[in-house]
Amino acid sequence: MSFSATVLTLYPEMFPGPLGLSLAGRGLGEGAWSLETVQIRDFALDRHRSVDDTPAGGGAGMVMRADVLARAVDHASPQGDPRPRLLMSPRGKPLTQARVRALAAGPGAVILCGRFEGVDQRLIDLRGLEEVSVGDFILSGGEPAAIVLLDAVVRLLPGVMGNAQSGDEESFENGLLEHPHYTRPQEFEGRPIPEVLTSGNHAKIAAWRRAQAEKLTKERRPDLMAKPPHPVQK
Amino acid sequence: MSFSATVLTLYPEMFPGPLGLSLAGRGLGEGAWSLETVQIRDFALDRHRSVDDTPAGGGAGMVMRADVLARAVDHASPQGDPRPRLLMSPRGKPLTQARVRALAAGPGAVILCGRFEGVDQRLIDLRGLEEVSVGDFILSGGEPAAIVLLDAVVRLLPGVMGNAQSGDEESFENGLLEHPHYTRPQEFEGRPIPEVLTSGNHAKIAAWRRAQAEKLTKERRPDLMAKPPHPVQK
Repeated sequence: MSFSATVLTLYPEMFPGPLGLSLAGRGLGEGAWSLETVQIRDFALDRHRSVDDTPAGGGAGMVMRADVLARAVDHASPQGDPRPRLLMSPRGKPLTQARVRALAAGPGAVILCGRFEGVDQRLIDLRGLEEVSVGDFILSGGEPAAIVLLDAVVRLLPGVMGNAQSGDEESFENGLLEHPHYTRPQEFEGRPIPEVLTSGNHAKIAAWRRAQAEKLTKERRPDLMAKPPHPVQK
Repeated sequence: MSFSATVLTLYPEMFPGPLGLSLAGRGLGEGAWSLETVQIRDFALDRHRSVDDTPAGGGAGMVMRADVLARAVDHASPQGDPRPRLLMSPRGKPLTQARVRALAAGPGAVILCGRFEGVDQRLIDLRGLEEVSVGDFILSGGEPAAIVLLDAVVRLLPGVMGNAQSGDEESFENGLLEHPHYTRPQEFEGRPIPEVLTSGNHAKIAAWRRAQAEKLTKERRPDLMAKPPHPVQK
């Protein structure tokens, strides 16, 4: 069984979108993963196909109804479905590369894309949704976030990324941001490639890269340095 | 002049993608913002249209060439272009709602989407690219990240989001995750809406929401609580 993604959304036409091209798109075409979308509106209970209502207690915007979403979730992910149920939400736990790896090692994911002010809390509680955030900013809806999450996961699936080695030395895989890269031409606008990189001395190159990665991480992301060493999962 | 986005990419067909639908798509159609894509490969220097080469010093993957990218950047963003030049990269500064607001208040953005192992550091330095990350995970390329960034920015542009008030009370705007939401039906699978929300007592409702937001933030994102109060920009 390959990785199976089901996305619940008011905008199924946003998918596969960028996931239909490049690595992810090729993987989709070759069956390395599958993608199904569910139109939440099809599970509405009235003839206006309403999916939202005004927030209890007042305030701006609209809230997605628990009863309508429950019907959509239960259809897409019946009891016994082993896939985690995710809700893309800025209130969620920030997505990490470790979580991405865990998802890629599993059977798939059921992803609910929130819209408007949010989703009725009772649906989140009673259907065991795991709230996942892709960053400390607000999107128009969960769809762009779902695309990011799936892109990160799909590139790790067997057969999707050409160069398997490529996945290992990257930012976050060892708890550091990645060192700077250089390639030909040897000189660009008067600047040569740093000498050490063309020295052929592999130990020196490795030491230089490590030092650069540590310097960059300390400058830009001291929060990463403060964390315990990140176990590299293979 | 409305917000003008130029995206440099090897996959122009990924755009507008989800940005062509819903709020962002309507705004695009109505001229609230504009989107141009530039195919980096059109600026290659050889007949194979190469854009990348092997990393100096060895290692997996390929690095995007400084000389090819410089031609593309200089075409898309000639000297005097007031727009910031962003490079979507996991090594960048994490995107925040404050940065999103600042971008939305500006003339637009030139966004370079990295691919492969990364971009020659000399290009980043000499063209003053601001590296921006949408999270601590690795994508197949910068394109899904650019879509997320633009979605976050575009919804703040004048005339794009229907309910202007909606932008203010959300997660991160006051340094807290958002409180839980509820809407009809009054009872869902045996669970009623919390009584306070149907009390009609606005002061009590505001206090309850504030307490819930603080509790949630403390549980899920103690890192946000540790930060100095977030200035709300209007």
